[in-house]
Formats: sequence, structure tokens, C-alpha cells
Amino acid sequence: MKAAYVQNGEVLVGEIADPVPGKGQALVRTHSCGLCASDAHFLTGGKNIIALSRRLGGPYAALDFERPFVPGHEYVGEVLDYGPGSRRTVRPGRKVTSVPIMRQGGSHAVVGFSHQCPGGFGELMLLDEDFILEVPDGLPDEYAAMIEPLAVGLEHARRGRPQPGDAALVIGCGAIGLGVIAGLKLMGVAPIIAADFHQSRRDLAVAMGAHIAVDPREVNAYAPLPDFGGRQANLIYECVGLPGMLQRIIESAPFDGRIVMGGYCMEEEPFFVFAAQNKRLNVQFAGGEEPQDMDLALRSIADGSIDVTPWLGSRIGLGGVADAIANVSGPGTPVRTVIDPRML
Amino acid sequence: MKAAYVQNGEVLVGEIADPVPGKGQALVRTHSCGLCASDAHFLTGGKNIIALSRRLGGPYAALDFERPFVPGHEYVGEVLDYGPGSRRTVRPGRKVTSVPIMRQGGSHAVVGFSHQCPGGFGELMLLDEDFILEVPDGLPDEYAAMIEPLAVGLEHARRGRPQPGDAALVIGCGAIGLGVIAGLKLMGVAPIIAADFHQSRRDLAVAMGAHIAVDPREVNAYAPLPDFGGRQANLIYECVGLPGMLQRIIESAPFDGRIVMGGYCMEEEPFFVFAAQNKRLNVQFAGGEEPQDMDLALRSIADGSIDVTPWLGSRIGLGGVADAIANVSGPGTPVRTVIDPRML
Repeated sequence: MKAAYVQNGEVLVGEIADPVPGKGQALVRTHSCGLCASDAHFLTGGKNIIALSRRLGGPYAALDFERPFVPGHEYVGEVLDYGPGSRRTVRPGRKVTSVPIMRQGGSHAVVGFSHQCPGGFGELMLLDEDFILEVPDGLPDEYAAMIEPLAVGLEHARRGRPQPGDAALVIGCGAIGLGVIAGLKLMGVAPIIAADFHQSRRDLAVAMGAHIAVDPREVNAYAPLPDFGGRQANLIYECVGLPGMLQRIIESAPFDGRIVMGGYCMEEEPFFVFAAQNKRLNVQFAGGEEPQDMDLALRSIADGSIDVTPWLGSRIGLGGVADAIANVSGPGTPVRTVIDPRML
Repeated sequence: MKAAYVQNGEVLVGEIADPVPGKGQALVRTHSCGLCASDAHFLTGGKNIIALSRRLGGPYAALDFERPFVPGHEYVGEVLDYGPGSRRTVRPGRKVTSVPIMRQGGSHAVVGFSHQCPGGFGELMLLDEDFILEVPDGLPDEYAAMIEPLAVGLEHARRGRPQPGDAALVIGCGAIGLGVIAGLKLMGVAPIIAADFHQSRRDLAVAMGAHIAVDPREVNAYAPLPDFGGRQANLIYECVGLPGMLQRIIESAPFDGRIVMGGYCMEEEPFFVFAAQNKRLNVQFAGGEEPQDMDLALRSIADGSIDVTPWLGSRIGLGGVADAIANVSGPGTPVRTVIDPRML
């Protein structure tokens, strides 16, 4: 099959072996796949990232830096067939997505970070038939490709266990932060404060449901809010993923504040325990989505209760992947570029 | 008055000015005061500790390294009088203790870490009359001096919000860890696993209510427990306070585990956010006791439901403070040395 693959930290486009489905595996023709910052992260720090994942757990543990793998974990595709002995949970021809996990024996692979389970930047994929979710007929592919990144934000939002009276602050308005905002809005949290350096992202935050969007260099995001009875942010979502964020949040958070660490940072994070103790803070580490989050993301996108239209940038073919990965971040880039591996 | 005081990181004994109670302040003659590791911590790293406390909050923020202050925040004493205009909440002659906080305007001082509010290593103290707790007549002074350190452990225990089914692991069996164990036992948590390098401390842990006590160099404290249905520690209390503990716990904790950071560490703590995210861990930072914890500690010691007899080491006068602080830690030292500032 044709694929954009990564080898030795470089993005290449070419032919690689078609994946062959085993028992319990669906063979899927990819229609669309979103490009995530974590796809870019590997290119610059791959060897270290693999070593850390092996020592401490993480999606990159099974990768060999020098062998090719096909990235892409925000996919939608069409079921072609199943491996022998499968239950055939969704009939061929239907469009599906899934949580990017493939069970293997007692363990699992991460689709898109695996040599065995190619991701959505290739023409063909293997998905765990027990995890596939049928995508409604009328939902365009690029919307379906947003289910996975939205589900990550929905997971983070619920891990914060919002309570009546909470004032939420979402720091960083990339796809994950925007998904957190959408999730908090669904849960009825108010106010939702968004913080981002860039006006374009603050506008998106408001479109997703934030009541207030600030540039944290100019406005103290923790200040009392006159329009909300003087309340202050006490439930803080970190969606940036740069080292030093935790300590900064600790210094600004109020007594009894709760912090949800969503940004996936693979560098060491230094902070002062006593500073967090002085305020009796709670830190919940949020991971990736679970099937319930995928379900909610799919339903919310399909019924329009969460509109991801403003997330969508251009639709590119395999030949554009290297450039798109190199420019994945920054105020001028769309929240999501979508790759169609049927295009070159 | 006579006092053991600290100046420029040295312990000195001598005369200092008697404190004069203001409105809302009780003047108290100290009977006994426990010696805490945090009293020792200041001697070695005082300047840095003050600077950090000023920047990030903490009990040392109000201290001037070069000016004398009287330590001691685990005290019991006898009310002598009150400042003018006080409510005189407890009558003179009664024995009292308190949470070591003195309100001052809109702010507060920490008794024993303040130039204005001398701690229990001096003959006289000032206590906030709204925070004083009357100590029952029959309770010996050295037991009453254990109320405060026990209350810290009780606070940590409750901050972990134990749930049915939790298996608790308490790492570090100093006074705080032992207090956590006592608190968990009161709450009916089982099993309680204690981890400490030293046999004498493991014995104390069992005396306080731990079901299992292990040397973590020899036994994996997170292993399934056959006597408890194969359950594994999922509620982990850090009571050591050395940098690196959080990362070690993250590496060993199970999925969805909860960590309570009790040890008061003023050095930078490095860890990997993604390693905690992979397991969806929750970290609750525990601080110091609140009045409700002091109440429970007092009642539990007084009615014998928590027996602190094994904590008690020797009773010394002011002349012994410097040596006792220099030797505050280690397997051979008692959990608590008690200072009687009426003795030299």
C-alpha cells in the first residue's frame, strides 16, 4: 500500500507491505486522518521518547527508531474485511473509527505508533473489531476524523470531575484544549475561561463555548470575575504540554484548587511540592480517551451539539504530510489538517 | 524569658524578651513541646528556605535569617493571661494547645516560625484565643504535645478520601506516617501497608495499626496481597519528603492510583507528567492540620483510641535542644523528643 511513514525521524512516502488482518481484526481502507502534534513530537526527539516510553510506559514503547511505522491515530475508514475467525462486528462497506488500541495477547499496541498496526497515513489499517465504532452515513470524513481528538478533550474534561460552583480555566487552545472546553460546556460548567497567546485560538475557544478568553500575558486568568459573582478559576486544565506549566499553575491556583494535567509532555517537569501543599492542591493526570469518550464525541459531532467545523484546515494527500508535520504548531496553522491517503 | 532560639542557623539558649499579648491573644506558660524534623531543616538550608517561602508561600516567609526566633509548634502550656480586650476563651490555669496559627490583621503568623509569636522552645508563648483547645486534666504533658504532630497525619489521611476497597500504602514511618496510619485505622481502612527502611519504625507502624510492614528494599510494597484478596496498594501516602519520591511512586503505582503527598520537601521535585498520565494518577497535596484534625487528635489521644506512648523519647531541657535537633532523624532516634522549657 501507499503510505507516509516515519523512519529514523524522517517522513517518507512510498510503498509498504499491506497489513494482513488476524483474528478479531478488521482490515480498513483509510478515508481521512487528522494530524496531531504528537506525530510531530516523535520526529525531533524519537530516540529519547522511545527510551522513556520503555522505562515509564507510553505509546512509543513498541517502536524501533530505525524501522518504518505509519503514524495517524485520528482516522476514519471503510471496513473491507476481517481476519479469519473474527466476529465481523460491523459489516464491510461501513465507515468506522476506533480508539487507537489493538489488543494483542494480554497486551496491546497503539494504532499509529506500532510497526504491526499502521496508522491512518496509509491506505490500509487494521482495527480491533471490538473497538470499532460505526460512523453515521451522513457525516463527512473530515468531521469523523475529529472524533478521536475531540474524545481526548472530553476525557480530560470529565477527569476533572466538575462540580457545581467550579470555575474552569483551560490553558492552551489547541485541539485538546478546545475539546475540553466543548466537554465542559456539555456538562454545564460556567464560567469557562480560556487562555491562549493567539487571538485566532481565543476566538475558537469562544466558538466552542468559553465564556471568557484571555491572553495570559495581558490578563490574569485567575482574577475574580465580576460577571460571575466574583468567582475565580479553581479547576484548571493544562493543555499546553511544555515543561514548567505545572509549577506556574501551582503558583497561580487558589487554595483547594484542582489541576488536570492534559498536555502530553515527555520532558522532565520540575516543581515544588511544598508550594502545592500550601494550597492543598489536587492534580489529576488525564490520559487518552476511553471508548465512552469516543462514543460521546461521535454522537456530539453527528448531532451538531459540538461543531468542529472551525477546527478543519486543508485536506492534503500523502505528499503533503512532511510539510504539514513540520508546521503543525503555531497561530497560523489550523487546529487540524486532514490527510487523505487516497490522494498523493 | 529563657528560650532555645535560632539565629543565623545556630541554636542558642538564653534570655529573650517576654512576649506581650495583644487583643485576642493568650499568654501561655509552655509545659512541653515536641521537636519536629522541620525545626532541623531550617538550620541547614534556612536562607534558601526563606527565599522559597517568600516566593511560593510557606511557613518560613516571615522569618529573617539573621534575627532570633523561637521554634516549636507542638506545644502544650498553661494559660496565664490575655491581652486587653480579649474574649478570654479558656480560663487561666487551664492547659491548652492549638493549631500553630496566629491571625494578624487579614494575614497570619505561624507560631514557632515567627519573630512575633515564639514557639514552644521558650518559657512563654502567645496563642490565638480562638484557636486554643483545652487539654483534659488527666492527660500528661508529653501526650498533649503529640496532638499537633498526630493531627498532621490525620489531615493527610483524610485528604486521601479513603473509599471502601482501597488498599493504603504509607511510605515513611516518622511521626507523620505513623499519624497517617493511625488515622486510616480510625477510618476503617484495610489493608494498611507500611514501608520503612528501619525495623524499629516498622514495629511502630504495626503498633499504630498497619496490617503489613515492609522494608521496600526487600519487598515490593505494591505486590498483590494474598491475605487481602489479592488487592494491591492503590492509595499511597508519601511521608518521606525527599526529592524523587513522587517519580518513584508514579513508576510503581497502579492504574487509577491516588497519591497523597505529605512529606514537606523544599527541594525541587522532578518527574515525568506523561508517566503519571499513562496511569491516570491523582495526586492530592496535603498540608498541615486544621482545627478539626486537632480536635480529633486530642480526643483520640485522650480516650486512648490512638496510643502515642511508643512515640515518646526522652524529655529534655533547653540545654539539650541543639543536640536533639542535630540528631532528629535516623532509626535510633525516638519519634519525638519532648522539650520542657522550664528545665535547663
